[in-house]
Amino acid sequence: MNDLLQPLIQKIKAADLGWQQHAREHLDSLTKPLGSLGRLEELAAMMVAIQQTKRPKIERKAVYVFAADHGITEEGVSAYPKEVTRQMVLNFLHGGAAINVIARKAEAQVIVVDVGVDGDLADQEGLVHRKVRRGTCNMLHGPAMSEAELDAALQIGIDLAGSANKQGIDLLAVGEMGIGNTTAASAIVSALTGAVPFDVTGAGAGLGQEAVRHKARVIEAVLKKHELSPPTVADALYILRCVGGLEIAAITGMILASASLRIACVIDGFISTAAAALAYSLQPKVRDYLFAGHQSEEPGHRLLLEMMGLMPLLKLNMRLGEGTGAVLAFGLIEVAVNIFNEMATFSQASVSGAI
Amino acid sequence: MNDLLQPLIQKIKAADLGWQQHAREHLDSLTKPLGSLGRLEELAAMMVAIQQTKRPKIERKAVYVFAADHGITEEGVSAYPKEVTRQMVLNFLHGGAAINVIARKAEAQVIVVDVGVDGDLADQEGLVHRKVRRGTCNMLHGPAMSEAELDAALQIGIDLAGSANKQGIDLLAVGEMGIGNTTAASAIVSALTGAVPFDVTGAGAGLGQEAVRHKARVIEAVLKKHELSPPTVADALYILRCVGGLEIAAITGMILASASLRIACVIDGFISTAAAALAYSLQPKVRDYLFAGHQSEEPGHRLLLEMMGLMPLLKLNMRLGEGTGAVLAFGLIEVAVNIFNEMATFSQASVSGAI
Repeated sequence: MNDLLQPLIQKIKAADLGWQQHAREHLDSLTKPLGSLGRLEELAAMMVAIQQTKRPKIERKAVYVFAADHGITEEGVSAYPKEVTRQMVLNFLHGGAAINVIARKAEAQVIVVDVGVDGDLADQEGLVHRKVRRGTCNMLHGPAMSEAELDAALQIGIDLAGSANKQGIDLLAVGEMGIGNTTAASAIVSALTGAVPFDVTGAGAGLGQEAVRHKARVIEAVLKKHELSPPTVADALYILRCVGGLEIAAITGMILASASLRIACVIDGFISTAAAALAYSLQPKVRDYLFAGHQSEEPGHRLLLEMMGLMPLLKLNMRLGEGTGAVLAFGLIEVAVNIFNEMATFSQASVSGAI
Repeated sequence: MNDLLQPLIQKIKAADLGWQQHAREHLDSLTKPLGSLGRLEELAAMMVAIQQTKRPKIERKAVYVFAADHGITEEGVSAYPKEVTRQMVLNFLHGGAAINVIARKAEAQVIVVDVGVDGDLADQEGLVHRKVRRGTCNMLHGPAMSEAELDAALQIGIDLAGSANKQGIDLLAVGEMGIGNTTAASAIVSALTGAVPFDVTGAGAGLGQEAVRHKARVIEAVLKKHELSPPTVADALYILRCVGGLEIAAITGMILASASLRIACVIDGFISTAAAALAYSLQPKVRDYLFAGHQSEEPGHRLLLEMMGLMPLLKLNMRLGEGTGAVLAFGLIEVAVNIFNEMATFSQASVSGAI
């Protein structure tokens, strides 16, 4: 096991049953039929168990958008040119992208992290410079990154979880931008679950049918190259290094570190869920700190959510990434916390109970 | 046809295709892969078509909670005593119910309307007094209401849509409170669709299995009494008068009137959707002004949504009513409008298009 992650992995504890029981009892005293708020009640109970408090709170929110390029784009697996990664980072910093609009409504800070964009980015408010290298290597010909690069990328996520904790952020989302990264995520799903590439490869940002078939064949070749062909199921860190991405590694680090710090984390679409699934393979207890914001249109996404036993909060046919589906779900988690804290009990409101 | 509704029904126009086309073109120019925001894009296009503007807006929001009692509670169809209707109205007015918490977060006004509570309510901020009578008659023995009472209840919804329009409310939700009203809604579904009561009768606020079977048998007898037994499918206003409720009639009036005024309206759970389905039977074009906030746990709810071709925005296993699921969905519609108005285009942000 990796020296960097071992202490984090040991520090992550399963959700406390006592706190969950407390949450359940309080929810049952509120002026509504038992269980009638459905999943909102589950969300509130999760927040109570994560924060270990009788009065859970969500005061500061942030979405971390990890950006990096992918060497595999040389194989023609993407609908957009790889320059779009850097162009979209600038769009995030100028506030013009979907994630900016959604985060403004949610009153969440947007923090853009350059972990491997293949291009220069000037210093700007909201941009964290942590470039490990200018994009991964083409994983068709060798590992996407070296051991040292993997550690550096994981460390970025660990560091940012620490700084989120210091800033008092109590709800965070992990998003990403990286032309080519659905190819990496599909390869990860195959290697983690043994599913064949053709079953877990989708249109990404908008490939046609023939291009999706080409993408699946490239993934098949990549898996063969790294001796990860289905039904082989391999070690998470080996998979991450060989067929992952720098932004995916940073997200894996952030998910593990935020769970160790007991910060609630909302995962987004296919890419960030692939990172979560790697973290889950290393430590299944991370699940107790994770919320699945939505289910995207990518076919591999559902498989990953099922593997972790996570039920998506939203299903709106989205397939954009950036953290959009995760931050969209912030409102539901916040309402759940407010319900827990603000609703009157049957006795406070003098409402009769069931017959 | 009812003289009250005829002018409204004629005034409702189908969504304008030109505005929808405009919305589609603008959405396709924004910095995201085509269609990648899924249902958020549909919501934005609907708002553009409803408001007939290049810059849709949601500035004032309100939820109308219509409260009334039901004579059918004499037959032991509810898990809670009927006093709870009045007690919960007081809870709404004191801000302690789930709808209050959800509306505060959504920055929506809560307007509670007494259309037929069987009890006295003092004047209070946020309460509209429009009591038609102290609860409906027991529909097992006769029509739930008279022709004049039906018109009075419909008129309440029509009047409130008019006052919402004057106040500049551009997004409204319809909710309800009424012990016994899932029994009325189940009877409406059977009479509207020809489905048998056992297929569309649920636990309401929390009945056990045997009590649900009793409730279905009561509904069966009610339908027989009014010559509405499946597979009979009858006229909406006859159904509403015989087996409906005063709050359901008020919601039907509000849905028709708000569509005629081109105000977007979000429906909630089983009861308000039954009211919407009655409005839809009278004028299918109302559909273009309606958003289905969520899909509840009541088995008849899905059937009604399918009948109208409405896809619920949320599915969180809720079954509370009050307008909770509708107001919870406000955030998604608002984000959709913000995306339409605030995102940068490919040319504004200098982002490359697809290869």
